[in-house]
Amino acid sequence: MIAIDWGTSSFRAYRLNEAGELLDQHSSAKGILAVEGGKFAEALQREVGDWISAGEAPIVMSGMIGSRQGWAEAPYAECPAGFEEIAGKLREVRWGERRAWIAPGLSCRDANGVRDVMRGEEMQVMGIVDSLPEGEQRICMPGTHSKWVTVKQRRIERFSTYMTGEVFAVMRNHSILGRMMMERDDATDGEAFGAGVARAGEPGGLLHHLFGVRARGLFGELDEKQSASYLSGILIGHEIQSAREDARHIFLLCNPQLAALYRRAAMVTGITASVLDPNAVVSALHRLSSFVPKHS
Amino acid sequence: MIAIDWGTSSFRAYRLNEAGELLDQHSSAKGILAVEGGKFAEALQREVGDWISAGEAPIVMSGMIGSRQGWAEAPYAECPAGFEEIAGKLREVRWGERRAWIAPGLSCRDANGVRDVMRGEEMQVMGIVDSLPEGEQRICMPGTHSKWVTVKQRRIERFSTYMTGEVFAVMRNHSILGRMMMERDDATDGEAFGAGVARAGEPGGLLHHLFGVRARGLFGELDEKQSASYLSGILIGHEIQSAREDARHIFLLCNPQLAALYRRAAMVTGITASVLDPNAVVSALHRLSSFVPKHS
Repeated sequence: MIAIDWGTSSFRAYRLNEAGELLDQHSSAKGILAVEGGKFAEALQREVGDWISAGEAPIVMSGMIGSRQGWAEAPYAECPAGFEEIAGKLREVRWGERRAWIAPGLSCRDANGVRDVMRGEEMQVMGIVDSLPEGEQRICMPGTHSKWVTVKQRRIERFSTYMTGEVFAVMRNHSILGRMMMERDDATDGEAFGAGVARAGEPGGLLHHLFGVRARGLFGELDEKQSASYLSGILIGHEIQSAREDARHIFLLCNPQLAALYRRAAMVTGITASVLDPNAVVSALHRLSSFVPKHS
Repeated sequence: MIAIDWGTSSFRAYRLNEAGELLDQHSSAKGILAVEGGKFAEALQREVGDWISAGEAPIVMSGMIGSRQGWAEAPYAECPAGFEEIAGKLREVRWGERRAWIAPGLSCRDANGVRDVMRGEEMQVMGIVDSLPEGEQRICMPGTHSKWVTVKQRRIERFSTYMTGEVFAVMRNHSILGRMMMERDDATDGEAFGAGVARAGEPGGLLHHLFGVRARGLFGELDEKQSASYLSGILIGHEIQSAREDARHIFLLCNPQLAALYRRAAMVTGITASVLDPNAVVSALHRLSSFVPKHS
């Protein structure tokens, strides 16, 4: 089979045998934003045409390829959802004699009825559900829009999104706080980051804590090499505090850099965190392929 | 005397007699950012040169004119501060035979030792302290950087800043949320605004509530004519909730449009609000002029 994680800015494909063992892999920057004029079939042929010609099937894809801006919209499945619910909403696409399947995203409502959505992250989570301890577990997937997912009995029970990464980027690049920061600062000052996380636990609220980046800078109590890290700590601290619910331990599903950052922030907040392998998405797509009708 | 409120983007001057009665006034867009090459004396002469030539004195100014980017830096006075503490830090500037006085901004530390600053707002507050009831009162000055000020016995006891207006602007203009909004929307949908304020009172935290603007939009549960108002409600709701402390009544010091918005948000939050006259800054500058050494 061919498993594809096709996101906004990247394309990652894996060729697997029936047992789910990796035979080959290929990735490129051909995310959906890099595909012009809706020519997704052509893009797919260009990326992994030799696997397809060799008769590899089925082709199962997840990620933003199933969004309104992708190949074809695969409407969201409702939480709680596991493999069966996701498989029930697989969307078929055809080109010539070929076909492929796109996994849906997930949607849920919180206790107050407000919607949330994810697309792509659900397959990453489904890839690690077997490795979690019994009972309700809380998974954190840090990023531009961090996702916090509650898993129970190998299904995604519910989740919520936090705009942490995007708020960091817009505040740094477009607000007055950016003037307090060195331009090429990569926000790696651990001490300032920890101070920001601790600040998030104090009274005043996020809108007030943000202004502290400026006020402390004006008084020379925070220098331009520390301000970005302090801001990052404030935002991640607020995220963890709001999202942890009553968890005393969380599971991080992300790259090692973000994992280190969030692990440190969790520690300051008084909770422990273990790091999971984000590449498990491949095994989830393999498992999902067993739900696809056999090559007709 | 001449009282001047000289901010980042506007210049407002008032000619007053000894009793503090208004004889004349003049305002322009000649804020400090519009003054090139540090030629503040020339700008002042151009704006109100005829009053100065007529011998009107003293000249007392407040606002960003006393910042590092202004005419001369008037270092912050520490809270708690009233007229005496502010007068004690008046900074004199001279040009030719003339001179003028610039009021300092205020600074304070919160219970956790984090700095906050204001510059210009303190004179607006000093203009209304006489009109407040006895006891500790909480004043809200909404804006790009909203200031919440605690006044006690006609002095500014402490204050804190909330980046509400700026976060609204950057999220609308530079984040993915802007795509959910009609371009020329002036964010006046009362119902969506109220829903945003109510949302701020629910669990999840600001970083999560922000994403709701997108998720609800994707599901058609919020349309593009409502999204900006909903976002505004979320932010102002979070501000009031964090900043009210235990106040059941607040005083709003701002223009009538912002006052109507915040009054509505306060109502949704379950507190009452009265609106004060923001032009009272003139009487504060008049009062401050009594501390200036007589024309030497």
